[in-house]
Amino acid sequence: MSDGKGPPVLEGVRVLDLTHYEAGPTCTLILAFLGAEVIKVESPTKDKSDRQRFNGEEDAKEDLYFVLMNLNKKSITLDIATEEGRSLLLDLVEHCDVLVENFRPAMMRKWTLKDEVLRRRNPRLIYASVSGYGSYGPYAAYPGLDMTAQAVGGIMSITGEGDEPPIRCGATIADSSGGANLALGIVAALYRREKTGKGMKVEVSLQDCAVNLGRSLLGTHIAYGSKAHKAGNRLKDVVPWNIYPTCDKGYVAVCVIPQRQFERLMQVIGQADLLRAHRLYSLPARKKNRQLIDEVVGAWVLRRTKREAMARLCQNDIPCGAVLDSIEVSDDAHLREREMIVEIEHHQWGRIKVLGCPVKIADSPVEIKTSPKIGEHNREVFARLLGLKDLDLQGLKARSII
Amino acid sequence: MSDGKGPPVLEGVRVLDLTHYEAGPTCTLILAFLGAEVIKVESPTKDKSDRQRFNGEEDAKEDLYFVLMNLNKKSITLDIATEEGRSLLLDLVEHCDVLVENFRPAMMRKWTLKDEVLRRRNPRLIYASVSGYGSYGPYAAYPGLDMTAQAVGGIMSITGEGDEPPIRCGATIADSSGGANLALGIVAALYRREKTGKGMKVEVSLQDCAVNLGRSLLGTHIAYGSKAHKAGNRLKDVVPWNIYPTCDKGYVAVCVIPQRQFERLMQVIGQADLLRAHRLYSLPARKKNRQLIDEVVGAWVLRRTKREAMARLCQNDIPCGAVLDSIEVSDDAHLREREMIVEIEHHQWGRIKVLGCPVKIADSPVEIKTSPKIGEHNREVFARLLGLKDLDLQGLKARSII
Repeated sequence: MSDGKGPPVLEGVRVLDLTHYEAGPTCTLILAFLGAEVIKVESPTKDKSDRQRFNGEEDAKEDLYFVLMNLNKKSITLDIATEEGRSLLLDLVEHCDVLVENFRPAMMRKWTLKDEVLRRRNPRLIYASVSGYGSYGPYAAYPGLDMTAQAVGGIMSITGEGDEPPIRCGATIADSSGGANLALGIVAALYRREKTGKGMKVEVSLQDCAVNLGRSLLGTHIAYGSKAHKAGNRLKDVVPWNIYPTCDKGYVAVCVIPQRQFERLMQVIGQADLLRAHRLYSLPARKKNRQLIDEVVGAWVLRRTKREAMARLCQNDIPCGAVLDSIEVSDDAHLREREMIVEIEHHQWGRIKVLGCPVKIADSPVEIKTSPKIGEHNREVFARLLGLKDLDLQGLKARSII
Repeated sequence: MSDGKGPPVLEGVRVLDLTHYEAGPTCTLILAFLGAEVIKVESPTKDKSDRQRFNGEEDAKEDLYFVLMNLNKKSITLDIATEEGRSLLLDLVEHCDVLVENFRPAMMRKWTLKDEVLRRRNPRLIYASVSGYGSYGPYAAYPGLDMTAQAVGGIMSITGEGDEPPIRCGATIADSSGGANLALGIVAALYRREKTGKGMKVEVSLQDCAVNLGRSLLGTHIAYGSKAHKAGNRLKDVVPWNIYPTCDKGYVAVCVIPQRQFERLMQVIGQADLLRAHRLYSLPARKKNRQLIDEVVGAWVLRRTKREAMARLCQNDIPCGAVLDSIEVSDDAHLREREMIVEIEHHQWGRIKVLGCPVKIADSPVEIKTSPKIGEHNREVFARLLGLKDLDLQGLKARSII
């Protein structure tokens, strides 16, 4: 895929990254993967800095959660709670294409770092913001994070078994899609800027993004005006659609929609007779015999390991996925070949496996690099962009501005 | 947010949309929301057309799932399984900026519609593809869809209660993030094309995108080399982080990380004494008293409705989200003000509520429009772009090419 050696697609785009926690860093991470120069701004005092760099214990190594979220970025320190810090930030804004933040809307106002102020300094600036509920609407001042977004976005109400309490998706899907949607908005605004020369303001809310993730099931019920129910691993209208235990104490998901795929499945698992006997020649007929089909598929799967069942069915063009855990994902040959799992060298942890970039662009290869040390790029950024001298930097450091 | 009246950010971008099911249509949907002209290509024979437009029953109205996935698009009919159809498709490619498809890699090869063929006709074309496993790697030929991607992407292994079987997220998160990531890659390639004048090839796989959604929990465990476990609605390292039943038979999620937020929570629920008695002044102390804290938060919540509990806690800057179902999401005042829930007029269903666009760009308002009727834009597209006359179209129709 990435044989060519063209420059990365976002080469030349400079991003000032005021984000922390996860939704914001996820956005700037993918911009960095695609070749933008992302300058992460951290507080010079340890406890106020990005809360994920250190997990609180003295002398602990950097948290790997932080590392994963901040690959391929640069780091500078700057205390934007001080006036001098904010003044330097505004100087930097003049040299940047994009500013991304995920504070609550009130914080940026308090610091007089509103959209309009920043764009007065640099009319070409794309101002991008992600927060729990966005900057307008009745909940705009409410705090929100991934799990509350999964709640108010309807995701929890459709996840889990029908008779059990709602459950969250174990992945932080609201944060992650918040970051991806914001990145999309930013790049679309950059594209527009090529025509107009003008910056724009982009925002996403975690609740909006969670709702959007539910577009198929939740959205369809909303359009019909009906209440969506939890259905565990099944789908009301499709059979088979479930997980089945394997002989190695694992599970596989088997999900079959087209009739020709279903008939091939029956062949492969040696149940062609059953197909004829019960005339399972349509989706309605399959639905009527859900239990029977679950039984024969389950019996076939149970005699195999999850990897065997997946390979055998997929090689026969029948969708089947082994339920993989974190260790198995990290060892997966396919993910490694696709560079979704790559190894990097971290200055404290040594050689570690990290996740790569899910967007693959031919001729624009992504090289995954470790996260920066705190303030690692202070000299480079402040000297190159603002022309500050070593002496200036020493003074700023002495006053804990950087 | 959208007071300004500038043109949409992707105005002037024309997308040929060969997608079906969900991951592909989700991608072109957001491009359409952002102002691209998306031309959906459907088979002229009903049973081969986008499988979601009609759910199989004769004379049924269009499936609302299809409507939700295809808002703001145009529709033409074209049978690309025929040589004449493919020839017209190649003519259209000359007039388009982007082609998006989510066939299995083998299908496009079979039709000799490979990336290189298309880009020979139009060197500026962005070719974009989403499939279960992408076009390279050992599983490239395997079929895959949302739930199998949640399985092989590790999401199911971290969703659900610790002692229960794995469970999928009820939202089709792999499809949805596949679409969003592909859209991001497309727009990034469009941005690059402004500099180089050349098209590119972009692809995403559902497995890669699912893994990427798990970047925080799954990714951190991968970096540590450890196995991530299901934790229900709790987080191992944070207390409180759970859902709690309310007096109206609902639930709220309460998730508190910073110590000052926790102490405020104890105040608001009248448990300041408990805070002092158990010296709950740090996260480790809170973790040691998980059960006690769950009890007092739970008792307070249980005396309130989910809306009351959410409002009271959020107004005190404590993250709390009511678990909303599809009906409640569709009535949510905040989502309506943010135009995530909007009403449209459908030619068969009349006035219905649909989901809007989660990316908000100031001065680039998104007007949500209903999905097209099948072939609604045949005349417009074939006449305007290819110069075909009514007589040509009649002939093509008679031969079931369009």
